[in-house]
Amino acid sequence: MTMPIETATPEHVLTLDRVLRAPVAGIWRCWTEPELLRQWFCPRPWQVAQARIDLRPGGEFFTLMSGPDGERVPNHGVFLEVQPERRLVTTDAFRPGWIPGDQAFMVADISFEAMAGGQTRYLAQAMHWTAEAMRQHEEMGFHPGWNAAADQLEALARTL
Amino acid sequence: MTMPIETATPEHVLTLDRVLRAPVAGIWRCWTEPELLRQWFCPRPWQVAQARIDLRPGGEFFTLMSGPDGERVPNHGVFLEVQPERRLVTTDAFRPGWIPGDQAFMVADISFEAMAGGQTRYLAQAMHWTAEAMRQHEEMGFHPGWNAAADQLEALARTL
Repeated sequence: MTMPIETATPEHVLTLDRVLRAPVAGIWRCWTEPELLRQWFCPRPWQVAQARIDLRPGGEFFTLMSGPDGERVPNHGVFLEVQPERRLVTTDAFRPGWIPGDQAFMVADISFEAMAGGQTRYLAQAMHWTAEAMRQHEEMGFHPGWNAAADQLEALARTL
Repeated sequence: MTMPIETATPEHVLTLDRVLRAPVAGIWRCWTEPELLRQWFCPRPWQVAQARIDLRPGGEFFTLMSGPDGERVPNHGVFLEVQPERRLVTTDAFRPGWIPGDQAFMVADISFEAMAGGQTRYLAQAMHWTAEAMRQHEEMGFHPGWNAAADQLEALARTL
């Protein structure tokens, strides 16, 4: 017996929904080119010390974040979906090869929509496996952190 | 800075590696057509009461298993990779839309390789996020269960 495809609603979601004053082409480049990603992806004074991007479903998305006091935080993950200048989905749940990672903490679902005047609607949804993970992410500073990174993204994309 | 793509080795893996006396085309059909899947996917006397297959990365893979004493066990998941007659990767970690599921228990990585005489090498790897999940899966009867299902798969595929 077959049945209609089900639809589900994410439960443990943190959302950033903004209009950025930069064209979608530049924002896409900032997300997908390692040398550009490194310049905006972490709220300063944190930095991205290394980035690896293999831009295809299952391909690697790795960043090494470095903090002002010498902290080093690696983030291993993969892309789940790549729709150029439309949508990018990543997760820390896998290493390349669909190998389960150290944890399944979250999925980042990023949508881009070109708007009039060279602006872009930028919708970032962080979907977590548990309510506890979502709370933890919020307490770590999701809202100020992702907003500060989006400011840096906007500023960089305007220069491209 | 970019670096070479990393490779990782799965840690918590249960493996079934067999040669099935049936052609790969039939085995692929048994895995990907709901009406065929229902006939072999559960070791009898358990049955698949419902199956939904949306055969593409991110597409739904759902089965409802029913037991001899009226048990009902739904399994929600998606496909991660679809290489016709070569490889099929699924996980229970997501609902369609890359929405985090109730749990991230395992990834099933199934490889098919055509061999001489209409036989098929059938390699099934169940990769888990934790050692605890792997142990639990083994205690639930991974080895006898997946072997019995593979027997049913072989018998059905030979009739196609």
